[in-house]
Amino acid sequence: MKIALAQLNYHIGNFEGNLSIMKDAVLKAKIEKADLICFSELAVCGYPPRDFLEFRDFIKQSIHVVDQLCELTEDIAIVVGAPTVNPEIEGKDLYNSAFFLSGKKVQYIAKKALLPNYDIFDEYRYFEPNRSFDTLSFKGKKIALTICEDIWNLGNQNPMYTICPLDEMISQKPDFILNLSASPFSYEHASSRLEVIRANVLKYKVPMFYVNCFGAQTDILFDGGSAVLSPDGSCYDEMPFFESCLRYYDLDEVCNGGVSKEQEKGEIELIYKALVLGIRDYFSKMGFSKAILGLSGGIDSALTCVLAVHALGKENVKVLLMPSEYSSGESVTDALALVKNLDISHEIIPIKSVFDQYKATLQDYFKGLPENVTEENIQARVRGMLLMAFSNKFSYILLNTTNKSEMAVGYGTLYGDLCGGIAVLADVYKTQVYQLSNYINRAGEIIPWNSISKPPSAELRPGQKDSDTLPEYDVLDKILYQYIECHQGPNEIIAMGFDEATVMRSLKMVNKAEFKRYQAAPVLRVSSKSFGLGRRMPIEGKYLN
Amino acid sequence: MKIALAQLNYHIGNFEGNLSIMKDAVLKAKIEKADLICFSELAVCGYPPRDFLEFRDFIKQSIHVVDQLCELTEDIAIVVGAPTVNPEIEGKDLYNSAFFLSGKKVQYIAKKALLPNYDIFDEYRYFEPNRSFDTLSFKGKKIALTICEDIWNLGNQNPMYTICPLDEMISQKPDFILNLSASPFSYEHASSRLEVIRANVLKYKVPMFYVNCFGAQTDILFDGGSAVLSPDGSCYDEMPFFESCLRYYDLDEVCNGGVSKEQEKGEIELIYKALVLGIRDYFSKMGFSKAILGLSGGIDSALTCVLAVHALGKENVKVLLMPSEYSSGESVTDALALVKNLDISHEIIPIKSVFDQYKATLQDYFKGLPENVTEENIQARVRGMLLMAFSNKFSYILLNTTNKSEMAVGYGTLYGDLCGGIAVLADVYKTQVYQLSNYINRAGEIIPWNSISKPPSAELRPGQKDSDTLPEYDVLDKILYQYIECHQGPNEIIAMGFDEATVMRSLKMVNKAEFKRYQAAPVLRVSSKSFGLGRRMPIEGKYLN
Repeated sequence: MKIALAQLNYHIGNFEGNLSIMKDAVLKAKIEKADLICFSELAVCGYPPRDFLEFRDFIKQSIHVVDQLCELTEDIAIVVGAPTVNPEIEGKDLYNSAFFLSGKKVQYIAKKALLPNYDIFDEYRYFEPNRSFDTLSFKGKKIALTICEDIWNLGNQNPMYTICPLDEMISQKPDFILNLSASPFSYEHASSRLEVIRANVLKYKVPMFYVNCFGAQTDILFDGGSAVLSPDGSCYDEMPFFESCLRYYDLDEVCNGGVSKEQEKGEIELIYKALVLGIRDYFSKMGFSKAILGLSGGIDSALTCVLAVHALGKENVKVLLMPSEYSSGESVTDALALVKNLDISHEIIPIKSVFDQYKATLQDYFKGLPENVTEENIQARVRGMLLMAFSNKFSYILLNTTNKSEMAVGYGTLYGDLCGGIAVLADVYKTQVYQLSNYINRAGEIIPWNSISKPPSAELRPGQKDSDTLPEYDVLDKILYQYIECHQGPNEIIAMGFDEATVMRSLKMVNKAEFKRYQAAPVLRVSSKSFGLGRRMPIEGKYLN
Repeated sequence: MKIALAQLNYHIGNFEGNLSIMKDAVLKAKIEKADLICFSELAVCGYPPRDFLEFRDFIKQSIHVVDQLCELTEDIAIVVGAPTVNPEIEGKDLYNSAFFLSGKKVQYIAKKALLPNYDIFDEYRYFEPNRSFDTLSFKGKKIALTICEDIWNLGNQNPMYTICPLDEMISQKPDFILNLSASPFSYEHASSRLEVIRANVLKYKVPMFYVNCFGAQTDILFDGGSAVLSPDGSCYDEMPFFESCLRYYDLDEVCNGGVSKEQEKGEIELIYKALVLGIRDYFSKMGFSKAILGLSGGIDSALTCVLAVHALGKENVKVLLMPSEYSSGESVTDALALVKNLDISHEIIPIKSVFDQYKATLQDYFKGLPENVTEENIQARVRGMLLMAFSNKFSYILLNTTNKSEMAVGYGTLYGDLCGGIAVLADVYKTQVYQLSNYINRAGEIIPWNSISKPPSAELRPGQKDSDTLPEYDVLDKILYQYIECHQGPNEIIAMGFDEATVMRSLKMVNKAEFKRYQAAPVLRVSSKSFGLGRRMPIEGKYLN
C-alpha cells in the first residue's frame, strides 16, 4: 500500500484556497498511484477556527469542501480533518473529526477523544469528546485513525485525560496508525513530539503515519515536521520544518524499519525559521505585501528588519530612522550600516520638529513641571505616528520590534513603540535576541556588530540605559522564564537562588504591565508560553502587584 | 435558622482585601446572631482568577484565607467559595469548591460539577468537574450546597451537560438549597437568572438561597441580584443590583412563601448602572482616581463623560476639547454646554499646529499624493497623543468613547480614538447610546439635546457624516446584533428581510476589523456577547472577508 502524506499550509476560513491546495496534492498523488492521501487536522477550515465554529454557515461550507474532495476519490482514498455536527442533543454541538473518503463515499468518520483545553487551546469550548473507538478497513488493512492529542495519553499517564484511544483500538490489531495533527511549534516541542510518536509506536508495535500542518495563523505557528515511524521505533522519515511537503511511503517498507532519517532540531535555527514564516504568512494571509519598521540602531529593530527581509524580500521592506536629540551618533551609523548590508529603502526623519510642536502645544498646561516619562513617551509616540502615516499612505504594515523581556515588564510605550500589526520578537527574550542575531551573522556581518555589542538603551533621555530601570537581562530573563514558562511563584524562584528583591520587583512589573499587553499586537509564538490567548491574566488582578 | 447572605465586591488576587470585607460581614452577622453566613463563588480569590490559578502560591494564599475565616466560626457557620486541590493524579489540578466551615473546622467541601466553558468562561481550563454528590447536615437541617452553573441544567435539558447535581441530591431530602454564584451581568440575563432559580425551587419544592457577587473585574461586570426563593416559587427577597448588601433570613419564614419582592429590571437603567460601576471599579481596583477624555461635541463622548462623572465625581473628570479645521462651530458649543451642565474642568487645545507640523515633516515623502484617510488618522492620533500626554503627566486614565457599532465595523483609528485604559461604550450599540442618553436626560438636559439630535460625524474631513461610510445605524445595529449576539450567518440574516448587499458589506467589515479590536482597550461587558475574551476570532480568518 502506497500512502501519501501532505504537509500543507491552510488558511482559516479560506475554504476555496484550502480546497485548491488539497486538490492539487490529490492530483499529484493520483499520478504517483498512491492508494491513500492524508491531510491534517481540520485542514478543511484551518486550525484554530475558534468562534467561527459557532456559525452553522461555517460548518456547512466546511462540509461542502469535504463533499468536493469526496468526488475525487474514485481511485484514491482521502483522509482529511473537518468539524462534524454532533447528532445528539446532549453534549457540545460539534466533533473534531477526520473523514475517510473513498469510492466517492464517506467510509468512516473518526472523532477526536482528547480535547486540549490549555494554553492556546480551547477545544472543549466547541467539541464533544469521542467516547467510542473502532478501526476501519481499507484494501485489506486495518487503520487506527486518530487526531492529534489522541496519541498524547500513552499508558493513561497524562493527568488531563482519563482515556487512551489507542488502548481502546489495539485489540482490533490495526496494521498502522494514522494521526492527523495541528500541532503548533514551540522551540521545545519539536523533539518531544517525535518522542511521543516513537513511544506510541514502540508500545503498540504498529507503524504510525503522523501528518501535521505548517504555516502561521497570525500568532500561532505550525512547524510541520510530519513523521513516519516504523514499529521498531526508527524514524523512517521526518518532513522538513516550516515547508510544504508531499511524500509517498510504501507500507511494507515502513514496517521493515531500520531506517533513521531524523533531522537536526537546533533551537535557534527553528526559532529563526518560525519567525520568518510567521511574518511571511501574516502578510500573505492578510493580503499585504510590504512592511515598514523603525530602525533605532539597536539590536531588536535590526533583527526584526533582517527577519522581514528574509520573509518578504528586500524590495518589500522599508525602514525609517527617526533620531531625536537624545539619539547617539552611533545609533544612526549602526542603522545605516544595516540598511547598507540589507540594501533596503530608508528615510531619515528627525522627530524634533513634531516633538517640539507637541511641547509648545502643551507648555501652558505643563508649566513649571519637570520633563519626565511623559516627554519620553511623546517621542516614542511621534515615531509610532510617523510609521503609521507611512503605513496608511503606502499600505505598509508596521512590524513591532518589542522583545519578550520588554513586553513582560512593560518596558515600552503604549501607542508608541508598542504599535504594529504583528509583534515579531515579543516571544523572544532579550538574551535569545542576541543568540538569534549571532545566528544571523554566522557567515559574516549582517546585523552591525556594534548593534549587538553596545549596551541596550531606549535613548529617550540623555545617557539612558535599560539597566537604569531593569535588572540585567541575563538575570531578568531567567526569572521571567521561571515565572512565565514554568509557572513558578515567587517563593519557588527565590529558592532557586535568585535575589529576593529582584524577583519580587520583576514579578510585580510583569503583573502591572498586563494592561499594556492587553492592547499589544499579536505575538508570534515560539515558546511554550507566549503572551496572547495562551496566557490569560486578569488586568486588575492584585496578585504580586 | 437565621441565614445571612453577603453580596460583596471582591478583587481578584487581593486576598487581604477580600478577607477584610468578609470578616466585616461575619462580625455583623454574629451581632445579628445569624447561624450561617454565605459568601459567593471563589469569593476568597475573586472571580475570574484565570491563569493565576496555575500558580501553586496563589492557591496556597487562597487556602490561607479560608483558614483565617475558619478561625471565626466558633459561633457561626461560614460558607465560602475557594479553589481546592484535586488530590487525584488523574484530572485537572483543581476543583471550584465551596467550604462549609463551622466550629473552627472544615465540615464539608462541595465541588462544582457543571463547568461553564463558553463565552467569557474557561472553567474547564482549570477545574475538574465533580461527579459525586451529597448533602450536608447543620443544626438539624440538610443543605444542598451548589455552585453557580450547578443549577443551570434543570431536567437535564441543557445540552452542554449530562448531569443535574440537584437530581442527585434530592433523594436525601435537603431542607434548603444554597447556591454560591459568580454570575456576570448582561442586560438580558438578570430576568432569566431569577427564572432559573424559580424553576429549580418549583421542581424540588425546596427553598433556595442564591448569593451572587457584584462588582467589575476590568471588563466583566457582576450585578449581584442575590435572591431567596420560597418553595412555592415566590421571590421572598431579591437584593439590589450593583450594590453591596448583607441581609438575614429566617428559614421558616422563607419556607412559608407567599411574599413577592421582585425588583424592576429595566434594561437601559441596568446598563447605566453597570457602566457606572464598571468605571468606578476599574479605577478603584487599578488604584487610579482621575479620568480624562476627549469631548468632540458628539453623543458618544458626551455619554461617556456623564457616566464618568457619575462614577468618579465631577472633581475627578477632566475633558479636552481638541477642535480641528474640520470641526463645526457647534461641536465646540455642544461640548462646552456639557462641560457647563456637569461643571467639570476642561481645556480647549486646537490640534492644527501639531497636525500641520506632521504634514510639514511628511511633505517630502507624500509629495503629489492627495490627502486621504492618512491625514484623517493623523488628526485622530494627535488627539490620542495629547490625551495620553495629560494622562502621563497628571496620572489621569484615558476613557475610550468608541461605541459597539463602530468597534464592530472598525470605524475608528487605531492608536487614535481607539486609545484608552477602558472602553466604556464598546458593548453598547449606537442605537442604545441614544436610549442611554435619553435616560440620562429623563429629568432634564444633561447631555446637550443638540449632541443627541445632530447626525453623527467623525469630523475628520469637510462635511463628513458616518452615513457616508456606514449603513444607517438603525439597520446596521440590527444586522450586527444578529451576527454578534445571535451567531446568525449571512443567509439567516438575509432571510430575515435585510438587504443582501448591506448584510454582506456589514459582516465583511466586522471580520476585517478583527485586527483593530485585538489591540483595543478592554470593553465593559453589558451584552451576552461582547468584544474581548468572550468572542474569539482568528485575525487573519478569511471567512466572509
